[in-house]
Amino acid sequence: MTPEQFRAAGHAMIDWIADYWARVESLPVLSRAAPGDLLAALPASPPERGEAWEAIIADVDRLIMPGITHWQSPNFFAFFPANASAPAVLGELLSAGLGVNGMLWATSPAATELETRMLDWMAELIGLPEPFRSTSPSGGGVIQGTASESALIAMLAARRRALNRAPGAELVAYTSTQTHSSIVKAAMIAGLADSPQDRRRLRLIGVDGTFAMRPDLLAEAMREDAAAGRVPFYVCATVGTTSSTAVDPVGAIGPICRERGAWLHVDAAHAGAACVCPEFRWLLDGVEHADSLCFNPHKWLLTNFDCDLFWTSDKASVVGALSITPEYLRNAASEAGATDYRDWQIPLGRRFRALKLWFVLRHYGAEGLRAHIRQHVRLAALFESLVREEGGEHFEIPAPRTINLVCFRLRGEGPEADERNRALLDRINATGEAYLTHTVLPPADGGDGPGRYTLRMAIGGTMTRERHVRRAWEVIRREAAAART
Amino acid sequence: MTPEQFRAAGHAMIDWIADYWARVESLPVLSRAAPGDLLAALPASPPERGEAWEAIIADVDRLIMPGITHWQSPNFFAFFPANASAPAVLGELLSAGLGVNGMLWATSPAATELETRMLDWMAELIGLPEPFRSTSPSGGGVIQGTASESALIAMLAARRRALNRAPGAELVAYTSTQTHSSIVKAAMIAGLADSPQDRRRLRLIGVDGTFAMRPDLLAEAMREDAAAGRVPFYVCATVGTTSSTAVDPVGAIGPICRERGAWLHVDAAHAGAACVCPEFRWLLDGVEHADSLCFNPHKWLLTNFDCDLFWTSDKASVVGALSITPEYLRNAASEAGATDYRDWQIPLGRRFRALKLWFVLRHYGAEGLRAHIRQHVRLAALFESLVREEGGEHFEIPAPRTINLVCFRLRGEGPEADERNRALLDRINATGEAYLTHTVLPPADGGDGPGRYTLRMAIGGTMTRERHVRRAWEVIRREAAAART
Repeated sequence: MTPEQFRAAGHAMIDWIADYWARVESLPVLSRAAPGDLLAALPASPPERGEAWEAIIADVDRLIMPGITHWQSPNFFAFFPANASAPAVLGELLSAGLGVNGMLWATSPAATELETRMLDWMAELIGLPEPFRSTSPSGGGVIQGTASESALIAMLAARRRALNRAPGAELVAYTSTQTHSSIVKAAMIAGLADSPQDRRRLRLIGVDGTFAMRPDLLAEAMREDAAAGRVPFYVCATVGTTSSTAVDPVGAIGPICRERGAWLHVDAAHAGAACVCPEFRWLLDGVEHADSLCFNPHKWLLTNFDCDLFWTSDKASVVGALSITPEYLRNAASEAGATDYRDWQIPLGRRFRALKLWFVLRHYGAEGLRAHIRQHVRLAALFESLVREEGGEHFEIPAPRTINLVCFRLRGEGPEADERNRALLDRINATGEAYLTHTVLPPADGGDGPGRYTLRMAIGGTMTRERHVRRAWEVIRREAAAART
Repeated sequence: MTPEQFRAAGHAMIDWIADYWARVESLPVLSRAAPGDLLAALPASPPERGEAWEAIIADVDRLIMPGITHWQSPNFFAFFPANASAPAVLGELLSAGLGVNGMLWATSPAATELETRMLDWMAELIGLPEPFRSTSPSGGGVIQGTASESALIAMLAARRRALNRAPGAELVAYTSTQTHSSIVKAAMIAGLADSPQDRRRLRLIGVDGTFAMRPDLLAEAMREDAAAGRVPFYVCATVGTTSSTAVDPVGAIGPICRERGAWLHVDAAHAGAACVCPEFRWLLDGVEHADSLCFNPHKWLLTNFDCDLFWTSDKASVVGALSITPEYLRNAASEAGATDYRDWQIPLGRRFRALKLWFVLRHYGAEGLRAHIRQHVRLAALFESLVREEGGEHFEIPAPRTINLVCFRLRGEGPEADERNRALLDRINATGEAYLTHTVLPPADGGDGPGRYTLRMAIGGTMTRERHVRRAWEVIRREAAAART
């Protein structure tokens, strides 16, 4: 491709994206592709000769688009959002064009230093205390790909610190029954669990009526393990669970961890974004007790995937768990103490992801980010009130709404009610007018009985406005009524 | 940003990148920034109000560019390349604009199915046998971020398989002394090594005069471990080491692994790209014995970071090591057996990275990729001959050249010669006209003596042509002569 061809193809691609964002609202949100559709349409073998760019782009529309589930649609209410924005996409583009690998400070000093400052900016925006900032001797932050990686890295750092204190100790980790699957996965990767069900070195702590971890049960489990000679070394508290945005009480959990010397990691993957607003900072109450925390601007803060922010107040343990320096990476700057972010992550290489975050923070400003968050929380409150006021006869709200996620379900208990809720979700998603997903909430009595199938309405799309939420509610009501007849 | 503003800013960004690629050759390759330069220039706090796009972009030139080490420069010969190309960058842009998360088949069927087919296409291009293809019942491939992650995932799959066969067994892993640091890092992450020096469950096998793993020493180490009741479970063979592109003899290593039931992972991160040319397929001789392998199109195959391809002939062990299904991810397609790539990787979320690979394969075609590889191998041979013929009085080639990396050094042994080589490298890089890095090669006699400081010339930039290589040699000669006077 000549430079002129690149300019033409690039301008056309920008226009394609602008057009896509303009029309995405009108597309069925959940892809209607059947398994194998695209595989059947693609050649079995790669082309021998290069093809014309126009032919390739035509195939994007013809072959790829029918297989896209539209995460950027304002009618996407599934999982948690993964919202992009124009400045972020341009930052990703610039990062790809520069094509630098920021594995070492020396391999592009700007990549490391911009990242360091962006983590400090964001720490200020969400009100993190000084020990997590790069201006503190033992603190600082880094961009990871995902919160899964942050949870794993925190676990590895915790192990490093625990084994330094008690070599050979039998270590035990703790998190709630409502935690994200990535914590169990981290334990499997780290060798602390042989299977998802292996509870020998990973305890799942019970929750209260709001689905938040019970500190008394955590303290009791730690006490039992310590009495048996095991070492409690890692606790993951979730601020905003994936099921229902439940908030583990970090302020109560922190002192329990401190007493046992356990590393406290706070997984605020989704909810952390809300803390750019002072009125939601209570979510992180007690974070001063944490050794690490993370949240994902790539979920609800206008920054395209991947961008997870990880902070620690004990960077020596993180680097101690992950640093290996072969000769071919040695350089004067590293030896003089420069930050080499490869030692803060699982991979060696890394893209220049701080660019997109810088663009987002400067384009929107603190003010713009707060307006973005507040709008969605307001819409979630509106949706909740619609369900209660217009739908109260048929629907219930089985979990408290914390921020922008509303859990709701058709009334009724037992398998038949679950099945009606499942069928309703399928009906809604089949319309293409909205896309929601589900969870199963534990029984309200905190017992071990079967959980309740529940629909989730997560409101966080960059382009989601009140009319989209109102229309989604109309679709839900309509489909629920049709199902009753 | 309005759609019209996005179009204007996007077109300008495309033009900026086109202009950058046109002028990058003239920029000092290694950034001349001093530690803290960018930090001092950036505001300590984020802006309260959003800023004008023009002001942000002006700061890219003013603040960021001085801190960039130009990986896309045709004069970049350091580490291994991380070459981008116009079609790949446009693929990354499209992926960001679509903003889909391909964690499950259902969350964008096209993301999964295009990836599956691209891995099959590439398997065909590099001549991988049928068991690694998705058309085989137990095989298939996936895009990972980096070869570090592939090495780790292979280790986890190997552990899963070994513990299924022998629950509770004491497992031992093997790789060569010349392996990439990521293998040791993987062992630390997986809990098989407490530190980079911990050799209780990770053996480093000695190498021959070409710096390739010695199968006899591997067999001996495995025999000793098995005799002591330990279970050899994982071997990583490197095809193209980072130090010198040494090639471990997979054909000889394979049967040794098979005899012990150990998982064989082939790390061809850099060299695998060469196998698009039939004349270099010997690099992967014996790969039919492997359980997994990986290579990075993001190094030498025109696809911007990150894009590591991982294939396995035992996907059940991979998924068995990494799969956890919480309720909120359950869906009909998964239960019907669709491929969910989240179960093949460390993170949960994932970008639509197959787009850029599809664009590259179609734009260049097999023919274009072969021409790209052959050009650089020819230039490496040219560089080697220049060193031997014009520089033979002062320089030596201390490691055989395999493909596009030339190891060379000023003649002489001992610390003084190492110091002269180190000083030469610093002089070359200070010119800004080329950027090379170094390694330390083990003693030629295979003993435990001190290694030899050696310069590395890796030729793989998308825009690197003969004149850049000839000029780099002139710079090297000139600086070496200046250092002698």
